[in-house]
Amino acid sequence: MYYINDKEYTCPVSVTLDIFNDRWKLAVIWYLLEDDKRFKELSENISQISQKTLTIKLKELEEKNIINREVYAQIPPKVVYSLTPIGEKLKPMLMDMYEWGKEYVSENGKITQDETSKISS
Amino acid sequence: MYYINDKEYTCPVSVTLDIFNDRWKLAVIWYLLEDDKRFKELSENISQISQKTLTIKLKELEEKNIINREVYAQIPPKVVYSLTPIGEKLKPMLMDMYEWGKEYVSENGKITQDETSKISS
Repeated sequence: MYYINDKEYTCPVSVTLDIFNDRWKLAVIWYLLEDDKRFKELSENISQISQKTLTIKLKELEEKNIINREVYAQIPPKVVYSLTPIGEKLKPMLMDMYEWGKEYVSENGKITQDETSKISS
Repeated sequence: MYYINDKEYTCPVSVTLDIFNDRWKLAVIWYLLEDDKRFKELSENISQISQKTLTIKLKELEEKNIINREVYAQIPPKVVYSLTPIGEKLKPMLMDMYEWGKEYVSENGKITQDETSKISS
């Protein structure tokens, strides 16, 4: 059996799913895979997220040791978020999920014009 | 934008998550990656699942084109479930999620004796 704090898992895949089993956390990880980001940048990149929700999600990911929060002592203070080494290791898996999802949609759904051109470019 | 029937997704990763974003569906896919299975075998492998829930989950996965259901005309009828080609393609991703989860737990949680010995064997 696998344990994270008091939570019990029968399979490590469930542990992994629990990390980004939430569209907001997934989006945060996705944008941090690109590069380290400040709060404002994340907030601008992730449309529709409220500042309150983003704060909660960042805190949860920090507590789970997926992201680092670094505060630079300057005025105004600069706060930068980055992935931890184990967070960085999510990259190949998320890229595979991206590719699989795209293939699945092309076989079983539809992709609107904008995305098709993005994909073919 | 990505569409599966009437459901809209902004990112293919969300499409992928939607396939196994459920412990039962994940378990069904996991056991079918091993080999094709009959209903009874899945029911025995996935402890705690009720026959009713298993029936629902199998139907959902079949509708999503992730698994095949083949009925053999014999008495009593034999029903065999297997992964479709796109379902089979989930394998590397799920294996990566398994490995990542194991590494994450070893760094941030604990693995009980039974599982440790399974891993080292």
